[in-house]
Order: sequence, then structure tokens, then C-alpha cells
Amino acid sequence: MAVQTVATDTDLSLGPAVALSCRECGERFPLGPIFACEACFGPLEIAYDLPGGDPEELRKRIEAGPDSIWRYAPLLPVPADVADKPNLNPGFTRLVKADNLARELGVTGGLYVKDDSGNPTHSFKDRVVAIAVEAARAFGFTTLSCSSTGNLAGAVGAAAARAGLRSCVFIPHDLEQGKVVMAAVYGGDLVGIEGTYDDVNRFCSELIGDPIGEGWGFVNVNLRPYYAEGSKTLAYEICEQLGWRLPDQLVVPIASGSQLTKIDKGLRELIALGLVEDRPYKIFGAQAEGCSPVARAFKDGHDVVRPVKPDTIAKSLAIGNPADGPYVLDIARRTGGAVEDVDDGQIVDAIKLLARTEGVFAETAGGVTVGVTRKLIEAGVLDPSLTTVVLNTGDGLKTLDAVAPTTGPSAIIRPNLDSFREAGLA
Amino acid sequence: MAVQTVATDTDLSLGPAVALSCRECGERFPLGPIFACEACFGPLEIAYDLPGGDPEELRKRIEAGPDSIWRYAPLLPVPADVADKPNLNPGFTRLVKADNLARELGVTGGLYVKDDSGNPTHSFKDRVVAIAVEAARAFGFTTLSCSSTGNLAGAVGAAAARAGLRSCVFIPHDLEQGKVVMAAVYGGDLVGIEGTYDDVNRFCSELIGDPIGEGWGFVNVNLRPYYAEGSKTLAYEICEQLGWRLPDQLVVPIASGSQLTKIDKGLRELIALGLVEDRPYKIFGAQAEGCSPVARAFKDGHDVVRPVKPDTIAKSLAIGNPADGPYVLDIARRTGGAVEDVDDGQIVDAIKLLARTEGVFAETAGGVTVGVTRKLIEAGVLDPSLTTVVLNTGDGLKTLDAVAPTTGPSAIIRPNLDSFREAGLA
Repeated sequence: MAVQTVATDTDLSLGPAVALSCRECGERFPLGPIFACEACFGPLEIAYDLPGGDPEELRKRIEAGPDSIWRYAPLLPVPADVADKPNLNPGFTRLVKADNLARELGVTGGLYVKDDSGNPTHSFKDRVVAIAVEAARAFGFTTLSCSSTGNLAGAVGAAAARAGLRSCVFIPHDLEQGKVVMAAVYGGDLVGIEGTYDDVNRFCSELIGDPIGEGWGFVNVNLRPYYAEGSKTLAYEICEQLGWRLPDQLVVPIASGSQLTKIDKGLRELIALGLVEDRPYKIFGAQAEGCSPVARAFKDGHDVVRPVKPDTIAKSLAIGNPADGPYVLDIARRTGGAVEDVDDGQIVDAIKLLARTEGVFAETAGGVTVGVTRKLIEAGVLDPSLTTVVLNTGDGLKTLDAVAPTTGPSAIIRPNLDSFREAGLA
Repeated sequence: MAVQTVATDTDLSLGPAVALSCRECGERFPLGPIFACEACFGPLEIAYDLPGGDPEELRKRIEAGPDSIWRYAPLLPVPADVADKPNLNPGFTRLVKADNLARELGVTGGLYVKDDSGNPTHSFKDRVVAIAVEAARAFGFTTLSCSSTGNLAGAVGAAAARAGLRSCVFIPHDLEQGKVVMAAVYGGDLVGIEGTYDDVNRFCSELIGDPIGEGWGFVNVNLRPYYAEGSKTLAYEICEQLGWRLPDQLVVPIASGSQLTKIDKGLRELIALGLVEDRPYKIFGAQAEGCSPVARAFKDGHDVVRPVKPDTIAKSLAIGNPADGPYVLDIARRTGGAVEDVDDGQIVDAIKLLARTEGVFAETAGGVTVGVTRKLIEAGVLDPSLTTVVLNTGDGLKTLDAVAPTTGPSAIIRPNLDSFREAGLA
């Protein structure tokens, strides 16, 4: 495996991060732009030396911090002065107490929607990219890159613009115009690849191994261990916003599965640090039926995830071969959760249900989590008497096509009262 | 003038609001769903009994409040317990220190972008609608309504859904599908009117005077005095985020002109309460050349604003006969500011400039303010050595059409390194 290394010493100023550690064999490596274990090819993740001491003091330090993910800088692989650097300052998004939705679903123990559409480019990707930017700076990279089919391209373009880095983002050449505009407007280079998303990914791997790719940080490839840690902040924020309390149940979407595993990691860190009480929580994974390899494996009692060819309107979750699928299965089983899926019709219904009850217009991924929540309650799997948090990771404005065919005016009338009366809406 | 009144006593629980006061003749009226002076037909605005006492204590009380406009509840016409009611909790959006943009524009005194695209439905309209919702509740209204061509429809639909009110929103029947979806997805009634936006407005006025309209709160008509106050929170947030300091210069978009006048009102309140030091500030108004009646009047030295027929890509600012135009002229002249306009090409350039430098993708209205800022600096009117705040009131995702024709991939390539090299981007 040809991995290009710009810097691998541990003098890097990445806060409490001290090493990379193999998730499979535990082998440790110095911090650097590598993502796979040299011994067993397992995925690498960040190992920390987290702050000890009085939890109450740490809580106060966090609460006095900025209204962004940087309030948790002591728990992230970023320099201590990260908030002073030019970045998009994502996070600390609303935790909506969803009482109207709770009534519709029969939840009595408290239902919350963590609404990440409030991030700067309106998806949770701003969290992960913000951490990747700091890693890129630490490793001396000058170009920020990724392969993407949507949310990530915009998040990388925006973050690089603000950070003063060049960006060069790769997408399939036939994306919808709206997504292309969002990816290109930040002024970085946007390259359309004549091929599928798989072709784009293969090309990026080739580029990393080539001299052209020197000085390039691919957020979801050679910066992946850092990037992935950004999802921990969802766990931190949810608990802090609940008054430093663990929720009983969380419903999290599954694309690669990385987000779900990092939310679990974040919750375990909060417990270890004494920031929340140590008590059980259940994590439920949510997929679209048109791309549900992890749900399939969960239901079949398998440990391995069989790849599928995605066919769903939930395009931000359409990863047929999810890298972290096996870890997701572990977590769902260990915590007493489950992995479930809903079909495209149920996704659209759930988007509308959330909009109608709470005024939150979610991306299709949010329809997946709300739909799965409803399905799991009806099946008696999710306990409605417990505190439950459902994630919405993106914005409905980005997936208008999903609801457009069934969302329109109640009536078209002439501009007079008689015409309005005839429409039956008075 | 037939004004329907549900409740006009002053026992209403609307916090420090004590009466309605005519902006023209000063006549006072009890709080109620009225919007024009019975004596002189002048516009009514809220009169307050604002909290006195130690400014430091009030600052601390605000800082300890929620991360939304409700931290300023003591200064708004809302009940003291407003934050406990189901609403969208808009506001407290990012104040972006725009050092990259400052370098491009030659601003040395500190340049900031107040980015209201972070609001729940991604425009500043969430602020004004949130206040209107509380007035609607206080007056016992059960239907929330408005005429709209875009941002407002979505803001009203979302806010009503969350507040548990019925909504019925009126739009021209031929709006773009994206805007229709945004207005309809929250499940309220959406009525397309066969006619222009003027026809929609005339119909709404008719409806307010008819028994059908009983119990209806039109946020921008019979609730307008309350609604308009929401814009004060932009002034409060900017000053608090600057460390309880007035900016020297503000650049504010002009549609009806209401926002600019309320920002001025908010700044004056902060001074009167001792929350910020009393020193001069200048307010600059920004319009699109295709709809610039206020800029025209300012340049011609007139006190009256001659209506125009709008023709600009900045549709959220396209009000040809701005109700608060004369007040805007007063404020620009009193504070030593100005009113300027930019053409559609300059608007698009400015949207791209802001995206490229700060990773903020603005609606066309944000292109207008950034473009006017650039123009005023080049003309020597805006002083680059002073602290300047530029407003972005909406989200680029809502006006993709403005930039789409000139925003796309740098290259389309085959998925191999040779093809990438040929593209000249390596």
C-alpha cells in the first residue's frame, strides 16, 4: 500500500491526539496522513491522552467555550487555539424538543431531533471537514480534496475557501446542476469525472499514490482518521444539550457507518471522563431499503456485511459496501439497539411528518431516521417511554426532488373571496 | 379602514411592550392586531417600557439566556416565558470575521458578515415570524397567514407547524417549483393565486376585512408592528458578538426598508439602556439597480420615494414601492450613511466573491450588500479603516439560478492521471 507521508512525528500540535491506532490489531503509529494499518490493513483511528481531573471543571471549561464544535477542542485532534484560526465554526446546532412529533409517534419519554441542517453548508459534513482541515494544516498540505456526490463537495469547497487552502474536488460528471453549483461556487477546482462514483474513488486512490497528489489532503481518504472524529461532536452536543445526560436511545443514519461508530465513541469518552453518568444507552442504525446491507446483516444475525447495489432516493446514504458496517453491527448488538430500514415511500412520508410537526425540513437521510424511529416504535423494538434522540444530518433544500412530486398547493384560485370559498379552505 | 380586532386591552402578556404608537403623529393605541393609525393612517410601531437598572446586570442576564433571539426577550414584544413555548428559536447566527474578504476589499478596520442563512429556514424571516407567532397567540389567532413570493412562505409554514397553529399562505400561482415545495412541505394550506404578487396582496387585504379572515393573523399585515420588531435582534446580536460594541458602519439590504429602520431602532435602544457606549454609527442601505427607488431618491436628494417596476435577480428585495423608504432616507442621512445600488452582474460577482473568500454562499440579497460595500469603498464613501458589518439575510441554496449559468466544473476528464494532467489542474 503506497501511502505518501508528509509528516509523521508526534510533535504535531493536534491537542490530545497522541497516535494512530489500528482498530483491528491495536498496533500504534505516529500521527500522520495514513489511514490503514501497515501490519494488518485495518482502519486507523485516533488515540488520545484525554484531560483528567475534575469533571465539573471540564464541563465549565466546555460551557464557556465558543458556540461551535471547538468548545470540545480538549477532546478533539485539533490544536488548542483552533477557534482563532479561519474556519467555518460548525456545530452546536439545535437539539429540538419534538413534542408534536412525540405525540404522533406515542413517545412519552421525551423525543428530540438533533438538527444538523443548521451547519454552515447545511449538513453534518461541516463537522468532519473542519477537523480534516486542521489535520491538513498540521501536515503541511496545501490542497484539500475529496470524492463526493453532494454534501461533502460543498463542505470541502467552503471550508478550504475560508481556511485559505486550495481545493480540488472530484465528482461524477453527470450530477444534478444544483449540486454542481453548490460544489463550484466556493471558487476551488471542481473536476467532473466521466464515470460512476466508483470510478471517481478509484481515480482519487490513484492520485494519492502519484507525485501529482503530493501536498494533497483527501479528507475522506488519507485524512480519514481525523475527519471521522468530527462525528464525535454530535454525541458531545446531544449530551450537553440534555443537561450533561446520556439519552436512552439514539437513532443514527448509516452510510459508511463511520458516524454511528464515532457517536458511540463520543458517548463512551464522556462516560470515561465522568462528564455524564455511566448508564446504558441503545444505538439504532437507520438505512434506506434500497441500500440496506447493514440492516440485512443485522436481521440475518450475520457479522459480515454483503455489498449491495444502491437504489434509493436517500443518495447521501447510498453506500453499497459500508466500510464500518461490521463495527455498526457490534455496537447495535452490544448496546441492545437494532438496525432497521424503510422504503422510499416511508422516507418521503417521514420527511413530511417531521416538517408538519416540528417545522424541520430534513434531507432524505432525516426521513430515513424518522421513518425508522416510527417503524421501530410500531414493532415494539424502540421503547417510547425512554428519552430518544433522532438525527437529522442534512437539509431538505438539497433533496427537493424527493418530495416535489407530492408537495404542492392546496388550491389554485382567482384573486377573490368567492373563489377562495369555493376551494373549501375558508 | 376596516380593522378587525380580537383583543386590544393592555393586559396582554407581551413583555415590555406597552402600546402601539404612530410613527407619524405619535398617537398611542392599546396593543392589538392593528397596523395603521386611526388618526393619520401612519404606520404603528411598538412602544416599550424597557428594563432600567444596571447595564452590566442586563448584559449578564442576556448572556445567560438561550442561544436564540429569546436571549433578548426583555427587549421584545413577547411573553417572558417565550423560550419555553414551541417555536423555531431562530437567531444568534454567526458573525463571521471576514479577514479574507477584508483583504480583497482593502478593509483594515475589521470586516464582519452577519450570516443569517443559519436560521431554521435559512433566512432572517425566521426572526420576524417568531415575534409574529407570539403576537398571534396573544391575540387568540388560530391561523397564521401571509402573502409571499418565497422566503416568508417557508418561514410562516415552518413556524406555524411547530407552534401548533394552522397556516394558510398565499403565493402567485406561477412560482418556481422549489419555492412552492419549500412553502408547502410544512403541511399548512398553500394557495396559489392566479395573478401577480400585487393581486395576492390585494386579495389578502380583502380577506382581513371579511368574516372569513376572523382569527387570522397575517404576519406582514395585521401583525406587522410586532413582526417588524424581530429585525431589532440583528442589531442586538451584532453588538453583543462584537463584545457589546457598536460597529462603525453597517451595510443593510433594503426591500420594504423595515429591516434597516428596526436595526437603527435596536442600536438606539442599546445605547439608551447603556448596553453599548454612545458613539456615532453609519447605516448604509443596499439595493439592486433593477429595483432601487430608495437609492435613486437618496442620490437625487429627495425625501419621497418614487415607485418603480422591479426587474432584478434579487427577488427578495424586489419591492418597487417600499413602505419604509422615507424612514430609510432619514436614517441614512442622519447617521452619515448612504444608499447605493449594484447591477445584476455585480450581484453575481459579489456572491462568488463572498463564497470564494469566506465559504459563505449568500442569497442574491447578500450579493447586493457585499457588492454595495465594494462599490462604496471604491467610491471613498465607506471608510475602510472603520469596523464594518455587512448583512447576509438569506441562503444561496434558495437562489441557485442567479449563479448557475456561470458556475460549473473547471474541467471534465476521463478517470485517469493523463486526462487530469491534460486538464492543467495538477
